[in-house]
Amino acid sequence: MIRVVKAPEVRLTELLDCAQRLFFSRGYDNTTINDIITEAGLSKGAFYHYFASKEALLEALATRMARDSVKELEPLLEDLELDAIGRLNAFFAGSRRLKVEMAPHIRNTFEVIFRPENIVLFHRIDQAVTAVVTPILAALLAEGHEAGILDAPDPQAVAEMLLQLRLILGPVMHKALLQAKDGNVDEPARVLDERLRLYGIAIDRVLKLPDGTIKVAEEGFARALLEPD
Amino acid sequence: MIRVVKAPEVRLTELLDCAQRLFFSRGYDNTTINDIITEAGLSKGAFYHYFASKEALLEALATRMARDSVKELEPLLEDLELDAIGRLNAFFAGSRRLKVEMAPHIRNTFEVIFRPENIVLFHRIDQAVTAVVTPILAALLAEGHEAGILDAPDPQAVAEMLLQLRLILGPVMHKALLQAKDGNVDEPARVLDERLRLYGIAIDRVLKLPDGTIKVAEEGFARALLEPD
Repeated sequence: MIRVVKAPEVRLTELLDCAQRLFFSRGYDNTTINDIITEAGLSKGAFYHYFASKEALLEALATRMARDSVKELEPLLEDLELDAIGRLNAFFAGSRRLKVEMAPHIRNTFEVIFRPENIVLFHRIDQAVTAVVTPILAALLAEGHEAGILDAPDPQAVAEMLLQLRLILGPVMHKALLQAKDGNVDEPARVLDERLRLYGIAIDRVLKLPDGTIKVAEEGFARALLEPD
Repeated sequence: MIRVVKAPEVRLTELLDCAQRLFFSRGYDNTTINDIITEAGLSKGAFYHYFASKEALLEALATRMARDSVKELEPLLEDLELDAIGRLNAFFAGSRRLKVEMAPHIRNTFEVIFRPENIVLFHRIDQAVTAVVTPILAALLAEGHEAGILDAPDPQAVAEMLLQLRLILGPVMHKALLQAKDGNVDEPARVLDERLRLYGIAIDRVLKLPDGTIKVAEEGFARALLEPD
């Protein structure tokens, strides 16, 4: 047997790629550590060298996905033609576009992640995403506050609040996904769009902006996310 | 042996009382189902007749505590001399008073509940409290909106958002409790007071009220909660 020697980072990347592929195709619950190591061509020992558990792997995957998304959205955040509000809106628009592109994957993962028995998983992922996004959002808010175009005297705390608020979307999203899977898209798309709009208005108000300034919702977004291919 | 026959509700109440006493004195982690049934004079079979697990018991206990608190605060909520904003403030003031009265118990339970490994417990309790408080808050918001003194066009969704926001207090509270236990009260009391004040301002803004209208924070409250006896 030829033993291919790979750098640890390469192996780690391959391991995460394999796990992601399996989680997206079979779902997290239906994928075992054995499935992952078989697919990745790794020994169990090698797996545990990287991760203490399947859950720890998922957390690393969530962090990687959050970082990748942010990396893709970074040019929007650095567009100096826009002020902080414009960049915040560009960030939300870009994040909607990414979500629609990834919709089939997102439907698979979200359906699993929002199940009541997966509350620990959900929190691990939420914490990974929050850790990546909070400093970016806080920096934008600080800049906007200094420029006098929004009100966020404690940008770090306000960023935490706005990210906390996004969790009201979770149960609505989960319910909508289940209904859409049963072929019922219109009503859940309407409810999800409305909830997104309310989330946007809550952000506006916390930042002392007129209702409708920060555009979290967009015509047709919930439908594009929910509708099975 | 004399077998005392008690009505099921009486037994259930006794079981919850015993569990509450033990959780508060020893902490949730250090209390086993065996400890509870010994204290309550119940068989294991009888325990499992009421609850599938220690966690399920905790959930029932959380619901009972939330209902008891609301019951105690109900007169404030029904005070017709006050408008919806006045009653919301009376509710927060009453809930602070209850918290200070129960401070030693709250310190014990919160310390356990906010530990990262107890995330499921935390969520069970949070859901139990949210389920009890959401309809009350939604009704107050609906009344205030109709009276034109605050802005909450979708009272149910806004109530959910405001309750979601209170979760930003959790990590701050946990850190403050740990610091206070080490004899350091001043700094965590200041941070917790400031976070409570920010939570109040976020509520004001979401409801389109001037900053400082809804009084969540109060001079000396964090210190009274944190300072060991």
